[in-house]
Amino acid sequence: MLIESDLDAVRRHTIASEEPVDFDDFWQATLAEAQNVDLDVRVQRVESVLSLIDVYDITFRGAGGTDVKAWLRVPAGATAPLPAVVTYVGYGGGRGKPEESLTWVAAGLAHLHMDTRGQGASWSVGDTPDAGTGGPQIPGVMTRGIQNRDDFYYRRLITDAVRAVDAAKQLPQVDATRIAVAGGSQGGGLALAVAGLRDDLAAAVAFVPFLCDFGRATLITDSYPYHEIVDYLRIHRDQAASVYEVLGSFDAVFHARRATAPVHFSVALMDATCPASTVYAAFNAYAGPKEITEWAFNGHEGGGIEDETQAIAFVKKHLGV
Amino acid sequence: MLIESDLDAVRRHTIASEEPVDFDDFWQATLAEAQNVDLDVRVQRVESVLSLIDVYDITFRGAGGTDVKAWLRVPAGATAPLPAVVTYVGYGGGRGKPEESLTWVAAGLAHLHMDTRGQGASWSVGDTPDAGTGGPQIPGVMTRGIQNRDDFYYRRLITDAVRAVDAAKQLPQVDATRIAVAGGSQGGGLALAVAGLRDDLAAAVAFVPFLCDFGRATLITDSYPYHEIVDYLRIHRDQAASVYEVLGSFDAVFHARRATAPVHFSVALMDATCPASTVYAAFNAYAGPKEITEWAFNGHEGGGIEDETQAIAFVKKHLGV
Amino acid sequence: MLIESDLDAVRRHTIASEEPVDFDDFWQATLAEAQNVDLDVRVQRVESVLSLIDVYDITFRGAGGTDVKAWLRVPAGATAPLPAVVTYVGYGGGRGKPEESLTWVAAGLAHLHMDTRGQGASWSVGDTPDAGTGGPQIPGVMTRGIQNRDDFYYRRLITDAVRAVDAAKQLPQVDATRIAVAGGSQGGGLALAVAGLRDDLAAAVAFVPFLCDFGRATLITDSYPYHEIVDYLRIHRDQAASVYEVLGSFDAVFHARRATAPVHFSVALMDATCPASTVYAAFNAYAGPKEITEWAFNGHEGGGIEDETQAIAFVKKHLGV
Amino acid sequence: MLIESDLDAVRRHTIASEEPVDFDDFWQATLAEAQNVDLDVRVQRVESVLSLIDVYDITFRGAGGTDVKAWLRVPAGATAPLPAVVTYVGYGGGRGKPEESLTWVAAGLAHLHMDTRGQGASWSVGDTPDAGTGGPQIPGVMTRGIQNRDDFYYRRLITDAVRAVDAAKQLPQVDATRIAVAGGSQGGGLALAVAGLRDDLAAAVAFVPFLCDFGRATLITDSYPYHEIVDYLRIHRDQAASVYEVLGSFDAVFHARRATAPVHFSVALMDATCPASTVYAAFNAYAGPKEITEWAFNGHEGGGIEDETQAIAFVKKHLGV
Amino acid sequence: MLIESDLDAVRRHTIASEEPVDFDDFWQATLAEAQNVDLDVRVQRVESVLSLIDVYDITFRGAGGTDVKAWLRVPAGATAPLPAVVTYVGYGGGRGKPEESLTWVAAGLAHLHMDTRGQGASWSVGDTPDAGTGGPQIPGVMTRGIQNRDDFYYRRLITDAVRAVDAAKQLPQVDATRIAVAGGSQGGGLALAVAGLRDDLAAAVAFVPFLCDFGRATLITDSYPYHEIVDYLRIHRDQAASVYEVLGSFDAVFHARRATAPVHFSVALMDATCPASTVYAAFNAYAGPKEITEWAFNGHEGGGIEDETQAIAFVKKHLGV
Amino acid sequence: MLIESDLDAVRRHTIASEEPVDFDDFWQATLAEAQNVDLDVRVQRVESVLSLIDVYDITFRGAGGTDVKAWLRVPAGATAPLPAVVTYVGYGGGRGKPEESLTWVAAGLAHLHMDTRGQGASWSVGDTPDAGTGGPQIPGVMTRGIQNRDDFYYRRLITDAVRAVDAAKQLPQVDATRIAVAGGSQGGGLALAVAGLRDDLAAAVAFVPFLCDFGRATLITDSYPYHEIVDYLRIHRDQAASVYEVLGSFDAVFHARRATAPVHFSVALMDATCPASTVYAAFNAYAGPKEITEWAFNGHEGGGIEDETQAIAFVKKHLGV
Repeated sequence: MLIESDLDAVRRHTIASEEPVDFDDFWQATLAEAQNVDLDVRVQRVESVLSLIDVYDITFRGAGGTDVKAWLRVPAGATAPLPAVVTYVGYGGGRGKPEESLTWVAAGLAHLHMDTRGQGASWSVGDTPDAGTGGPQIPGVMTRGIQNRDDFYYRRLITDAVRAVDAAKQLPQVDATRIAVAGGSQGGGLALAVAGLRDDLAAAVAFVPFLCDFGRATLITDSYPYHEIVDYLRIHRDQAASVYEVLGSFDAVFHARRATAPVHFSVALMDATCPASTVYAAFNAYAGPKEITEWAFNGHEGGGIEDETQAIAFVKKHLGV
Repeated sequence: MLIESDLDAVRRHTIASEEPVDFDDFWQATLAEAQNVDLDVRVQRVESVLSLIDVYDITFRGAGGTDVKAWLRVPAGATAPLPAVVTYVGYGGGRGKPEESLTWVAAGLAHLHMDTRGQGASWSVGDTPDAGTGGPQIPGVMTRGIQNRDDFYYRRLITDAVRAVDAAKQLPQVDATRIAVAGGSQGGGLALAVAGLRDDLAAAVAFVPFLCDFGRATLITDSYPYHEIVDYLRIHRDQAASVYEVLGSFDAVFHARRATAPVHFSVALMDATCPASTVYAAFNAYAGPKEITEWAFNGHEGGGIEDETQAIAFVKKHLGV
Repeated sequence: MLIESDLDAVRRHTIASEEPVDFDDFWQATLAEAQNVDLDVRVQRVESVLSLIDVYDITFRGAGGTDVKAWLRVPAGATAPLPAVVTYVGYGGGRGKPEESLTWVAAGLAHLHMDTRGQGASWSVGDTPDAGTGGPQIPGVMTRGIQNRDDFYYRRLITDAVRAVDAAKQLPQVDATRIAVAGGSQGGGLALAVAGLRDDLAAAVAFVPFLCDFGRATLITDSYPYHEIVDYLRIHRDQAASVYEVLGSFDAVFHARRATAPVHFSVALMDATCPASTVYAAFNAYAGPKEITEWAFNGHEGGGIEDETQAIAFVKKHLGV
Repeated sequence: MLIESDLDAVRRHTIASEEPVDFDDFWQATLAEAQNVDLDVRVQRVESVLSLIDVYDITFRGAGGTDVKAWLRVPAGATAPLPAVVTYVGYGGGRGKPEESLTWVAAGLAHLHMDTRGQGASWSVGDTPDAGTGGPQIPGVMTRGIQNRDDFYYRRLITDAVRAVDAAKQLPQVDATRIAVAGGSQGGGLALAVAGLRDDLAAAVAFVPFLCDFGRATLITDSYPYHEIVDYLRIHRDQAASVYEVLGSFDAVFHARRATAPVHFSVALMDATCPASTVYAAFNAYAGPKEITEWAFNGHEGGGIEDETQAIAFVKKHLGV
Repeated sequence: MLIESDLDAVRRHTIASEEPVDFDDFWQATLAEAQNVDLDVRVQRVESVLSLIDVYDITFRGAGGTDVKAWLRVPAGATAPLPAVVTYVGYGGGRGKPEESLTWVAAGLAHLHMDTRGQGASWSVGDTPDAGTGGPQIPGVMTRGIQNRDDFYYRRLITDAVRAVDAAKQLPQVDATRIAVAGGSQGGGLALAVAGLRDDLAAAVAFVPFLCDFGRATLITDSYPYHEIVDYLRIHRDQAASVYEVLGSFDAVFHARRATAPVHFSVALMDATCPASTVYAAFNAYAGPKEITEWAFNGHEGGGIEDETQAIAFVKKHLGV
Repeated sequence: MLIESDLDAVRRHTIASEEPVDFDDFWQATLAEAQNVDLDVRVQRVESVLSLIDVYDITFRGAGGTDVKAWLRVPAGATAPLPAVVTYVGYGGGRGKPEESLTWVAAGLAHLHMDTRGQGASWSVGDTPDAGTGGPQIPGVMTRGIQNRDDFYYRRLITDAVRAVDAAKQLPQVDATRIAVAGGSQGGGLALAVAGLRDDLAAAVAFVPFLCDFGRATLITDSYPYHEIVDYLRIHRDQAASVYEVLGSFDAVFHARRATAPVHFSVALMDATCPASTVYAAFNAYAGPKEITEWAFNGHEGGGIEDETQAIAFVKKHLGV
């Protein structure tokens, strides 16, 4: 059934929370700090059963100097720089195995598939550690380091995501002038964050994005992972103000306000994990050219393969393929 | 946790049910009847966002003359006949979209991906109707036509699966002397059935196969779809003998006794849907060369992508790739 | 708790969907086509442990010429024509055993208890097959043949229900001028459909009827069987318009607009399976004399035996008993 | 699935608990105490929509002098004494409405349908209060008064059940020499208790009986109502010995040892509520002539209507109908 | 998530049900009847492992003369009269063990911890029987005796709660002029009732109180124990009016209208057991000085230990400690 | 119901896994490394509502130099050194609020209540961060750093637990010659580990301990937190050997083999979280004087307050109180 029954209100929804006054300063400082560490991109050819696709094991230094992993997939034997997409993974997953996630490269794009630090165990394999300090937390990453904006898990992960584009630009198989970012759920939230933090993207894609309008999401759904935040506040009752203040610096809605690349969204009206109004909060805030596909009968699976094929068509168009 | 705690007994398990005395006659007659209808293979090129892979929409006449759909995926521009795999889909799913299930073709094989009549709605799209007559039934297909062996759903579906190989052999992109069959769960059960009913296969693959040792499966698990049979017998209390007699002609364990192609199995020890002993019933009965991978901590997802990469390596070896 | 909290809105609710312009033509053609097959009513006395009631096994040709089963129950030794009720069964059930469902006959009426094609396994026994062609579908019957109005399961079932009254009129134990129809849930939806398609009924009864206002029901509840439609559209995302167009020809609300027999409804305010507003959609649309009992604290069980006793009193009054 | 996998052990199972040494004394005293109160049977004709059946509202004094209700159903106009069955209701239910439970009377028997004190609210209506004193308890009746054998709920209920037969014998519509007792689940346990406490019964019937082998049942199932006892002992950890000592005087297995009337049992192999071995404990202990029907694929619904029709045939035979 | 999304409406909510016209008469008569039985307070020193705290086993005669138990906990060796708190327990629990619930006494107060008749088994031990007569009921106590206001369970329990204060005043360790009452959930509802029925209290505390605005609670939540009432009315469909009429005499909102002692409430916005609006119904009705703490992210656990520490501070202030 | 039905086998169970050959070396090195950092015990008096108890906020340096928090609770005004207990918390919890967990101090002991690094959010508050590096992991701590024995979360937590005793010995309120350790579930596993790693304890207590016989626990239960390990291995299929090798160094069974202090265990036969055989694995391995209480009807709540009072009596005896 519809998660939120008033569809007009859903489609018009804008975020009610205030943006932190130092939002830009915070992210400028965060990325500047990260840039103090050399990217140190390493590339290693991977053996696989695939013959149409070459896979490379990519390593670069992300937030705090951690070695972040990714797969680069290109058409077999590709040598000339290709238009490329950098993708981010949903909550709990990692970059998976080399032989997974072949759609983007099968469409002829170079595909840099970034791993997710410290996740990569719940539904797909990851290889990237998370080295941050964290106070008491609910299992998962939504409250890892939530006591302090500088320690919060997503500060590190978003930094990784921004730097993955830098890494992509250094790869010989990638045309550095034609790069898109994409992802679904957490991956979609990261794509929005990167779109807000970079001005060199050709396109962005966010399927049923997570990390949008925390203040509303935590009040209208009991689904995880948003609900991790509620679980934390049930016990740490005195930290509500500080927790939401921290989250304010990581809300993809505020990143969307700063984004300029053309974007393709999807949203699902029966999605209890990322309720439609929270997705519209980001969509309505998005500053660049935008389009959205609404899936009327889907939950958090959204458009599935249809999201992917729409996104590939959108990205190809904007990358001039 | 382990579904069956005595692992030695699991690995040694053999079916206790008697094979129908006319098992071979039944299937010979079934396939002969089907051959009265021309295969009438039709091929239509499909437009897609993929550039490394050509996809064709295949139609052939299956059981009862029904138009059965499939996708043929080949490396883009492939013209010479390629070694090929025919795959079957798990319960509830259909062949999906052209852009899905790219691993086999990315490995360089021609991949004929058969649709599943009347399913294709629960988790992936199908386009093939089922036109059989059916008495009262539990939702699903496990008891569709269960009142009579000739009307039982799986008589039609297994016939389709056998004929899909015939269809593959007629395709110009396929090397008719080098064909494997493969699938997981219901798809694995179908692969075993086809392996028992054909003698021209180069290899077979069955991941966590379904349709094995119905007599035991229905007593040791409450998971669907095996449990559909129990649900039926809860109400049709007087039909237990006749239902199991019908199922006897469709038990993949009995097909396995007749199979000669080299086979790769997988089995998962925490699989409540297709409990390990029922898979071992088929494995232990399998007459051809055989190997099995045991996933100690998995449920019905089995080895996931690792099942696929193992299978591709196995198939490539036996297809001389 | 209340499924829909604004009770005034619930009680005033009318359907928002448009009626198909050819609704009457479609049903006229459907019934005309059915009439091409002779009813061929067959009657067989059944042995049972009952001594106050005689039970007959009735067979007549329904949609597509399928043999549809029913029980006729009459007071033991009854020979003169009696006022009669034709009842329809809820989702998943069949006509059951001869010894079940004795209330109507114990009240002195002839009771023709129609079986439900292809159901009759989930909670009560059935004996009637369904022989239609069907495309990919969700387990159950809500999407069986949904691709095409002429193939849709309920076209056949509603036709059976209409013809059951014709069959009743041919039975010597039935007074053909005094017939009512009745049922709960799916049976109630069928009773409304029959009431809309026949003008020779003395009364109709619909307890917590199903098949009403599909467009609303699928958006406001996650309960099955309405949710089968949503499940289908989650995967067949491109068929929403055509699916609802097909359903339009089977919405009991539109049948209710054409009904003239006096009717008794029941509705339950805590019913998640058939939410109260969808029942009121049919009630408010019903064209004949009408009354409704509201059960404030019940779910889909509605009034249970109290629904039955109210219905019997209502029917007896309108049948002049 | 099978609740207990070793079917041979299930069928051979006998109770391990010791019978209280004063079991017979306790019940002799209990019934003697009850007999100090006059039965005071009151009969009131009930108006209903039924015309084939006459229903009377019966009241008699049960344990502690409480007015216990029952329905008497007889064929309409019956005046001569009829062979009769006294039935008991399953856990949570009451005697229901006059128009319910018509099978026995439709078979031509007089049917006294005893209400269940203090229950009659969870799934069918009751009208009989329970007036006992009770210590702390788990919701339900399994631990009401469990602190003391004389206060235990089932002492009162079994006494009511025994006296219901006395009441039946006083009714002019009942042939006092031809009375059977019957019931399912709790009702089956009561039938066994009455069969053990009376020597004037023509037959007894126990479907999937409850109240059997408490010591085993509480260890092998988590289903309610047996689990109420475990819930109690989780908190009242020091009362295990006394609780099982109290239960010993109410175990239907011990009553079965004393029963002489011919009995028909049913048992269901997938019944988690009353696991098969506990039913076999009673069956194997039963001292009179006995038969049992095993339902291989059923849970606690057992044989449903088929249990009833088998029972009616069995009872009719033993009542000489 | 928020149980009720319109927080302004929640906070302003007042009860819609009418107060029984004889509310005061009923309670005056009830308490007068109870006073006919002497309190007969008995005190017994309890051995325990505690050395900082002395525990006494208290017995007094409650409603109907039943011996009601309580623990008195005082600082070890305390002899002079101390300011005291009388507390009541949540649904299903009893007074527990002497060594439990030490916070109040550790804060230096005399703590009389009243047991709950007939409960004391679901999560903490009780020792007090309930001896009332009850008609058919749903497991639990919400419908025990609901057929008649004089028989209703809470008439007895509230009487016990009122008399516990009388008992406290007779204890030498208690300063009879400085007594507060407190409790959470059911205990909070009892505290409100006592506050409305006595004029000699120094303070009252109600955490997430139960027993407030039955008419609304039963319509907006499916959580137990309120839902017991709905379960009852699902079967006893004709008793809705009488059930709510009975409940009207026990609604803590009406007691709150009569209360004069300063009160501290807590309420939790994600509480499905005692929805916030029903708590505000009592708070807004409360006639004495009042304050409320709102827990934004909690369910029925409310503020947990933080509720307790706030309450202790509040009570100490009002008891002049 | 019983989690493991063969109680004799449960009680005799011994671990089958091999102990790492360098178990002692590993722990010697681990503790030696920790000792390189000064304990730096800091003590701060805490204001609270309690008047019988003084609470101090304790900080000491645990593994990796992290500031680990604890509460010290002593009888108000206590100045002389008291016999003391150091307790550890169950999974997900932290040290809570000063006013919680008062039983040990109310019994007259000094009570040092150690916080749990990085937990302290799921059910009680914590204040201690965890600063380790961790690879991909399942939410929770069971697989945090599981890739490498030196990085594994429990290496740090056990080190903290050992050092908490060192910290206790430095406190003026503690008699350093009379210290016990205690805990339930995870806290019980930690108590066993400390008992195996220290030789200066007067007593140890482990209620339903966790961290025992990982190899068996992960195969026989699906309950968390053991199941986190299975979840990890479902995805990281190739790491089973290395994961169990790492766990071997943290199995409390192996610590128990080295323990010399008298110990009190509890075990619950219906405990699915820490199945009884795994607890007996530790109990049977325990090298010092030992006793165990078996709770026959409890799940993981074990003996609750009765565990505590038994433990206090046991500890007092061994501490000479």
